[in-house]
Amino acid sequence: MTSTTLSVAMIGHSFMGAAHSHAWRTAPRFFDLPLDPVMSVVCGRDQDRAAAAALKLGWAAGASDWRAVVHDDAIDLVDICTPGDSHAEIAIAALEAGKHVLCEKPLANSVAEAEAMVAAAEKAARHGVRAMVGFTYRRVPAIALARRLVREGRIGEVRHVRAQYLQDWIADPEAPLSWRLQKDRAGSGALGDIGAHVIDLAQFITGDRIQEVSGRMETFVKERPLALEHAGLSGTASTEWGPVTVDDAAAFVAQFSGGAMGVFEATRFATGRKNAIRLEINGSRGSIAFDAEDMDVLQYHDATEASYVAGFRRILVTEPEHPYVAAWWPAGHGLGYEHSFTHQVVDLVEAIADGTDPAPTFADGLQVQRVLAAVETSSDTRQWQETAP
Amino acid sequence: MTSTTLSVAMIGHSFMGAAHSHAWRTAPRFFDLPLDPVMSVVCGRDQDRAAAAALKLGWAAGASDWRAVVHDDAIDLVDICTPGDSHAEIAIAALEAGKHVLCEKPLANSVAEAEAMVAAAEKAARHGVRAMVGFTYRRVPAIALARRLVREGRIGEVRHVRAQYLQDWIADPEAPLSWRLQKDRAGSGALGDIGAHVIDLAQFITGDRIQEVSGRMETFVKERPLALEHAGLSGTASTEWGPVTVDDAAAFVAQFSGGAMGVFEATRFATGRKNAIRLEINGSRGSIAFDAEDMDVLQYHDATEASYVAGFRRILVTEPEHPYVAAWWPAGHGLGYEHSFTHQVVDLVEAIADGTDPAPTFADGLQVQRVLAAVETSSDTRQWQETAP
Amino acid sequence: MTSTTLSVAMIGHSFMGAAHSHAWRTAPRFFDLPLDPVMSVVCGRDQDRAAAAALKLGWAAGASDWRAVVHDDAIDLVDICTPGDSHAEIAIAALEAGKHVLCEKPLANSVAEAEAMVAAAEKAARHGVRAMVGFTYRRVPAIALARRLVREGRIGEVRHVRAQYLQDWIADPEAPLSWRLQKDRAGSGALGDIGAHVIDLAQFITGDRIQEVSGRMETFVKERPLALEHAGLSGTASTEWGPVTVDDAAAFVAQFSGGAMGVFEATRFATGRKNAIRLEINGSRGSIAFDAEDMDVLQYHDATEASYVAGFRRILVTEPEHPYVAAWWPAGHGLGYEHSFTHQVVDLVEAIADGTDPAPTFADGLQVQRVLAAVETSSDTRQWQETAP
Amino acid sequence: MTSTTLSVAMIGHSFMGAAHSHAWRTAPRFFDLPLDPVMSVVCGRDQDRAAAAALKLGWAAGASDWRAVVHDDAIDLVDICTPGDSHAEIAIAALEAGKHVLCEKPLANSVAEAEAMVAAAEKAARHGVRAMVGFTYRRVPAIALARRLVREGRIGEVRHVRAQYLQDWIADPEAPLSWRLQKDRAGSGALGDIGAHVIDLAQFITGDRIQEVSGRMETFVKERPLALEHAGLSGTASTEWGPVTVDDAAAFVAQFSGGAMGVFEATRFATGRKNAIRLEINGSRGSIAFDAEDMDVLQYHDATEASYVAGFRRILVTEPEHPYVAAWWPAGHGLGYEHSFTHQVVDLVEAIADGTDPAPTFADGLQVQRVLAAVETSSDTRQWQETAP
Repeated sequence: MTSTTLSVAMIGHSFMGAAHSHAWRTAPRFFDLPLDPVMSVVCGRDQDRAAAAALKLGWAAGASDWRAVVHDDAIDLVDICTPGDSHAEIAIAALEAGKHVLCEKPLANSVAEAEAMVAAAEKAARHGVRAMVGFTYRRVPAIALARRLVREGRIGEVRHVRAQYLQDWIADPEAPLSWRLQKDRAGSGALGDIGAHVIDLAQFITGDRIQEVSGRMETFVKERPLALEHAGLSGTASTEWGPVTVDDAAAFVAQFSGGAMGVFEATRFATGRKNAIRLEINGSRGSIAFDAEDMDVLQYHDATEASYVAGFRRILVTEPEHPYVAAWWPAGHGLGYEHSFTHQVVDLVEAIADGTDPAPTFADGLQVQRVLAAVETSSDTRQWQETAP
Repeated sequence: MTSTTLSVAMIGHSFMGAAHSHAWRTAPRFFDLPLDPVMSVVCGRDQDRAAAAALKLGWAAGASDWRAVVHDDAIDLVDICTPGDSHAEIAIAALEAGKHVLCEKPLANSVAEAEAMVAAAEKAARHGVRAMVGFTYRRVPAIALARRLVREGRIGEVRHVRAQYLQDWIADPEAPLSWRLQKDRAGSGALGDIGAHVIDLAQFITGDRIQEVSGRMETFVKERPLALEHAGLSGTASTEWGPVTVDDAAAFVAQFSGGAMGVFEATRFATGRKNAIRLEINGSRGSIAFDAEDMDVLQYHDATEASYVAGFRRILVTEPEHPYVAAWWPAGHGLGYEHSFTHQVVDLVEAIADGTDPAPTFADGLQVQRVLAAVETSSDTRQWQETAP
Repeated sequence: MTSTTLSVAMIGHSFMGAAHSHAWRTAPRFFDLPLDPVMSVVCGRDQDRAAAAALKLGWAAGASDWRAVVHDDAIDLVDICTPGDSHAEIAIAALEAGKHVLCEKPLANSVAEAEAMVAAAEKAARHGVRAMVGFTYRRVPAIALARRLVREGRIGEVRHVRAQYLQDWIADPEAPLSWRLQKDRAGSGALGDIGAHVIDLAQFITGDRIQEVSGRMETFVKERPLALEHAGLSGTASTEWGPVTVDDAAAFVAQFSGGAMGVFEATRFATGRKNAIRLEINGSRGSIAFDAEDMDVLQYHDATEASYVAGFRRILVTEPEHPYVAAWWPAGHGLGYEHSFTHQVVDLVEAIADGTDPAPTFADGLQVQRVLAAVETSSDTRQWQETAP
Repeated sequence: MTSTTLSVAMIGHSFMGAAHSHAWRTAPRFFDLPLDPVMSVVCGRDQDRAAAAALKLGWAAGASDWRAVVHDDAIDLVDICTPGDSHAEIAIAALEAGKHVLCEKPLANSVAEAEAMVAAAEKAARHGVRAMVGFTYRRVPAIALARRLVREGRIGEVRHVRAQYLQDWIADPEAPLSWRLQKDRAGSGALGDIGAHVIDLAQFITGDRIQEVSGRMETFVKERPLALEHAGLSGTASTEWGPVTVDDAAAFVAQFSGGAMGVFEATRFATGRKNAIRLEINGSRGSIAFDAEDMDVLQYHDATEASYVAGFRRILVTEPEHPYVAAWWPAGHGLGYEHSFTHQVVDLVEAIADGTDPAPTFADGLQVQRVLAAVETSSDTRQWQETAP
């Protein structure tokens, strides 16, 4: 039991808000947290809908003025679950108000915004205020295990990274134009929304950074019916049509700081693939592979074994020895998508209590933003592009 | 929002208690329930540990006298998560006190107890009191989909059922003697604990009943160190040893009412298999297959397709059209072990509100008990044994 | 290059004859054989069809009198590819004539016939004449590797064997009545034709024998249209119908000499499964698993590894270190069904040259026959049945 | 039975020569060919080794002067299995001598050579002389089925191609410097040797051409011990070292003529991957996927199905309705690597008999060469590069 509380405000209450709320509710039930999170307020653009969300999601109150919320003395931490165009403004305000910040990815819609956020985070850090960006997939147990295996030297020197994030939810040309397909709201399309995840994961697992890229972005379907109403990722279609202003798909070849060659792809047009975050990393001593459509599994090949018994192992990442797993169920009992959000809350609360900087930091988020920008530039200039500032 | 509440008491707070508590906490957050569950009290043998469990698991209070709890007028429903030897006594008392009952599986430790429970449930049902047995795997979306496909006639007449529940948590002969390995507490070993699940699932999915069986039960490791303390499924070992009084593994051939041939196996000695509930059902028009170690997937083969494009499909059971899934995440985002407990709560609360009998009923639980008993008898007599009363 | 030849006669030239011919043609091209096989004569019931088969399959001549062939001084070895009802007569005649014999499985259609064949083989062995029964799946590299791993002690003490041979070629009730569905020709149905393979494999890999069984045999479709003409496994249907006199499916539980529990199933009604020979063997230190529909792969789990990196390995059995593989292609290049026949020829020719008894012996074939008979008896008597003579 | 023969000479008798010889021996045994191939002569640099190869591989004679062979009036067809640096010279001489030519891939070591070969083939074609390049993987049944599904419109408009050829045979930095790692012999490294295969397959299956590319080539290990002696793909190492003059790995993004986005990768450093030719193609109505390490399988997703039963199907490409399969074994019995060479012979002999041009033509081979050259240029210039002449 903890004597000290951590009062949390969440901004935004759609898909990501539901996932974050579940995490705040659940983390203290399965983990022993050093601080006791209190779900104080959820903030949306509309007061009534925010109040309804509070009741449904388990927050003590609903609010509609995010500025008031981030300046409320009773609040210790601001959890930002809005679209990318408001991240910078809210996060900077919260940090300046001395609140810890958890900000959904991508950190921002532009490198410039992300730089401003990093500056704010660094300034706040001097006063013990913490900032973290929500690349939650790092906390899928199989991914955390992948990182551990690489760190232990089990795959040796990394030579190849192949990373894909494949979805198909807009493969149908009649699917409506959600905010995620509008550049002014979303900042980027497949590249920024889902490609950002695999960029972060590839760098996280290998411990290396992407140094230069050459890629291509594509919008297969240029116009779509306007969305009348948002519901999850889809929404209902209108009879009016509007232009798709983001990329439907992106692919690029990359060079890593450690010498590895990378191949990346992000698309929402891979028919039959629903949430296929796939990573395969080949090193001089072994390989690992992951697919989020089989999320509790990490494939691992140990090339130092006698060749007659060597093979990719299907590690079912549900053992008590695996990252985060001991808090949950007996071996073999699978975890789901939302567990990584719970793990994120656990790690964030522990970092705050310990007075350390939680990873991924805003600087990590900025670095991903720079890779995204370099891919975009290379697609425009038809040349290789460095990611360094 | 619902105006009427449903006050719940839970008896027992170890592994199953944690899963049930999560379900009671979570169901109203993701589903629109017709009644509002209130987590009133959790009851254990020790008052202090019950109070601590209440705080940790989200119950308003802890208690140590289950009789007082089941007779408390403020309680509407009793959720029984204790070992099998106390199920009958608690359930019957609760039903007689007019409380709805959710009882963990196996329903009881003997056919006689289960019969008494069914009688109590039938009597209570006349007064609108509901009873349900917790074969939660029925509510894994892939299993519910399997049932739907069979009901739709997609696999035709069922000819083969092969069902396995494979674990390995006591493959090590030094693993301690937990209560699950003691006949007086657990009633049965692998057969009753895990075999019961696949028997229920096979009958649920096919809609047929097992009529006769011939099987064998085996205790590979006859003596084990006594367990000092229970922690999940394992526990710490003592230096004293005691006899294992239940089966380590069981296997049987079965005849189904609809003419299908069944082959069943339950073991805790299948090295490398952690929670492999595997079902394959072959019909005259198609087949389905499931493995709980890949829980979000149902394999389906449609034998009426042109043979050049026919093949087992890996259906990722995460679409909004799939059972229970619309309440959760976008397509492709996996669910975990605990979700089926949440679905169980949803279905139970809806049945109570609708005034209908929730399945699986106590009669379903009794029928599974009769299959277990027939397997045990056939193993003793070395002859086929009918399951009918 | 070899100076000594081995003159071969093959009796029967349908499906099995084609596979054996390919093996005789191919073995000397990829392996260094100690004797040079000469494909002298192929024998069938019809002279013209035998002559055509000779030309097509690469034999020097065709013949129609098998008795003349087995007594021909120019012949060293008789390869029997006929249906089971003629195995005993031909094999015994050939052995008595001093010819080495390779006989397709099942060894015979009854235990009595098989016993006579074993007696003939033992008598012939005193004169250096060799006899072998064609359980070719032993020579699939993945199976041979499985045997090696068990022999090396890698899976420890064997506790579970689950073995299935699943096909679906007569799942359609209109499929014609081939000779394989007639007891007088085929001896047995699914049990004898395909179940025999998995019985042999389970005993071969574990090194243990099945001691007692309890099973059930089933004929789902009792009448079928007569076959007009045989073509591979199917044939063309007539308008007349006849009774199916063999089993469509069989299942049994078994006790092994080493204490392991076995579960076996053989069926031609497993819709969507084409040639699914599946074996999973769980031991105290590890497990192995095989599926002939993914024939170049052996799954292996090493339970002695640290649990955080343990998992079933998909060993691609195409390395030069793997049994038989060095003679073929570079690593990763798959082999097919017919390769095991080629390996059978290699092992047989080497045994003949070395003057050793090639396995599986006729005694091995007899022992399988006894298991088949015990399953049949147990299905009739509804009791456990011992397999010992 | 055929009355007309086709007299074949093969140049080169190492790895590819063994595969081609097997094909020439086997094709007439399983297929009804319109011409009867006669294996007349095999030609190598050394007369004795060629004579030994003739005996081992089934050719009537060995020879060491390829010029004499291609001008021999008794020869109808020249099958070129030498390293790429001699393809152009031999093929052009043979075509000019009026011989049909089967030439191993890659067609040549440079675009210029390939252009000369195409010119020679076109000239010869006017006289009914046929030329074919050996991209054998087109004739793996699963690949031929993929092409059929695309042609039938089953996956709709192609949007994504992801193609990889992953091997690991030189991941060890001590692996010797075979001729395949020397630019003057091999022309190119991973890109030309194995990347060529997936470029051809991607274009073959989609029916589209790659128009422009941006890529990167890498030599991870710059120096290796010299090989003393060649044996298959490996060889024995010397104590002297030499420079690796080809690429170890290559990756590129591509634009297809039909609008699809492609991502390609070829490497010999993907630890644990032995012969992983992987293709995944996503279209507007469905997707297909293939992996040569599971060669008898094609994955197919039909996006027009009801979403609750949709999923990638594992089509076991062993049905009589599948391309080439009817000639082989019953359903479910796998084929191996060498079968595609046999199918190549079948298709080539049929084209010669029919008087049609066998695909892939030399022009197809040239087009692949142009893609290879464009990737190389783009890697040098760090810019996108068009593939058109």
